[in-house]
Amino acid sequence: MSSRVADLFGVKYPLIQAGMIWCSGWRLAASVSNAGGLGIIGSGSMYPDVLRDQVRMCKVATDRPFGVNLPMLYPDIEAHIATLIAEKVPIAFTSAGNPTQWTAQLQSHGIKVVHVVSSVKFALKAEAAGVDAVVAEGFEAGGHNGREETTTMVLVPMVCDALRIPVIAAGGISDGRSMLAAMALGADGVQMGSRFVCSEESSAHINFKQRVAQAGEGETILTLKEITPVRVIRNGFYQQVQKAYGEHASTEQLKAVLGRARAKRGMFEGDLEEGELEIGQVSGRVNEILPAARIVADIMNEYEELRTSLCRK
Amino acid sequence: MSSRVADLFGVKYPLIQAGMIWCSGWRLAASVSNAGGLGIIGSGSMYPDVLRDQVRMCKVATDRPFGVNLPMLYPDIEAHIATLIAEKVPIAFTSAGNPTQWTAQLQSHGIKVVHVVSSVKFALKAEAAGVDAVVAEGFEAGGHNGREETTTMVLVPMVCDALRIPVIAAGGISDGRSMLAAMALGADGVQMGSRFVCSEESSAHINFKQRVAQAGEGETILTLKEITPVRVIRNGFYQQVQKAYGEHASTEQLKAVLGRARAKRGMFEGDLEEGELEIGQVSGRVNEILPAARIVADIMNEYEELRTSLCRK
Repeated sequence: MSSRVADLFGVKYPLIQAGMIWCSGWRLAASVSNAGGLGIIGSGSMYPDVLRDQVRMCKVATDRPFGVNLPMLYPDIEAHIATLIAEKVPIAFTSAGNPTQWTAQLQSHGIKVVHVVSSVKFALKAEAAGVDAVVAEGFEAGGHNGREETTTMVLVPMVCDALRIPVIAAGGISDGRSMLAAMALGADGVQMGSRFVCSEESSAHINFKQRVAQAGEGETILTLKEITPVRVIRNGFYQQVQKAYGEHASTEQLKAVLGRARAKRGMFEGDLEEGELEIGQVSGRVNEILPAARIVADIMNEYEELRTSLCRK
Repeated sequence: MSSRVADLFGVKYPLIQAGMIWCSGWRLAASVSNAGGLGIIGSGSMYPDVLRDQVRMCKVATDRPFGVNLPMLYPDIEAHIATLIAEKVPIAFTSAGNPTQWTAQLQSHGIKVVHVVSSVKFALKAEAAGVDAVVAEGFEAGGHNGREETTTMVLVPMVCDALRIPVIAAGGISDGRSMLAAMALGADGVQMGSRFVCSEESSAHINFKQRVAQAGEGETILTLKEITPVRVIRNGFYQQVQKAYGEHASTEQLKAVLGRARAKRGMFEGDLEEGELEIGQVSGRVNEILPAARIVADIMNEYEELRTSLCRK
């Protein structure tokens, strides 16, 4: 399967597992890379020494390319950058920040840089900053999200038309069918988060994995737009947020409701009521916890079957 | 091109022009039907005698199938139903109401019934009510919209998996590329609104058509969720709504801000600041006012080209 994204990363399939807090450590990343996709370690929930250890374990577990997701507003971002350079991580996915800040430095060490965007405006800025590719992530995606609320169906073709570098579609994609739709929109590859939360190798708490597998339609919502928009499951914590809105809470009051370590509590420690459960709308279509290699194989098989059947129509 | 939707309606292409208030009278509907798609008259902004005249003119202008959109909460819905039966309109698209109410009566007169839904739950209810097909309309769609905020990318495969009857995808679709994506998701056909607002035959005011053609990304928003969620362009009227929210307005106060005939003022009379400008996110991808026949031909040509090129990959 030839694609600009597979070629850029040196992987078999243009299928990327999103680097997610609390869910994607070395086990998941290495499993996805070994299966022919691109696995990514999510560094946003890791202390610097944890990330270094995770990267080292990933290199032992796979000899294929893998990446690290770097939320650029992370307080110890310089230590993470130093780890990527020292450990010769081949690919960095940067998000939540300014792509001009680290792109050149990472690239000067041979690291490919991909930036996550939610609009054409930010996509053009990322391209101007010299990144190698962008992830265009729609409103339906889990976790932190753009303010424009543009969905994958609308965002991806706009970004593809505006940029010359490869575009990876994200948001609402979980299987071969939605991957084919994203490729039809013009994407060069796809990134999936929710689907890989429900993998055996994900480091998410089993309670969270099971909750995601059970989630039905309409169970997620984009909230806390005054702080940073985030898509979560409507649980007890979300009800507390809703109560605060009902009482016309200020941004400071909302931050107090959010408190600290809410995502860890929910996604890593398995407290489904008091924790913040970040996940995409497509959790409604993810119903099984499976080995990552099986997920990759199923997606690519379905993709090829559907592509062939679309051709015969 | 064979498809369950084209076969159901007896048209050449499974491409439907949405029946929209103030925008889609007989000129637009007949033009789309004559071009091989399915044109639909939007009855929600028409008095009963206006609808009757529009249907009669449509029958003169085309000998091909066309439809009428019926918002079931319309105050004079019984008169509209009587018109469809008396004038032998072949197809009704019902929305905003309970599909059990009129489906059997319409079908007993040989009228095909399609119901618009925003969730699997409502889709299953529509199927149980005996409708011939559903439109699954995502969060990115213009005008009135579902409360679940499920996007087209996530909604369409879920509805396709749950139903046996044909599924028409809507929301974020404006060209051959997005049509191909919707078909890849499993849809049997597509419905487009915003694209046909910007047609020469649309009855929208030229100011509104030009505003839609100029709209960029992020210019629409889903608002007034306490009344009925509606996607509009962020203009002066929307600022008034935002001001009311800032002052913690009650639902009654929001209704007072909305007032009466806001959509007519904006979309039909061309008052771009005081009017309510209902349109989809995909307005950011619609940049030209074209004849409806040209729109249909361009979409189908692009669809076939992209389908062929996806096959070669």
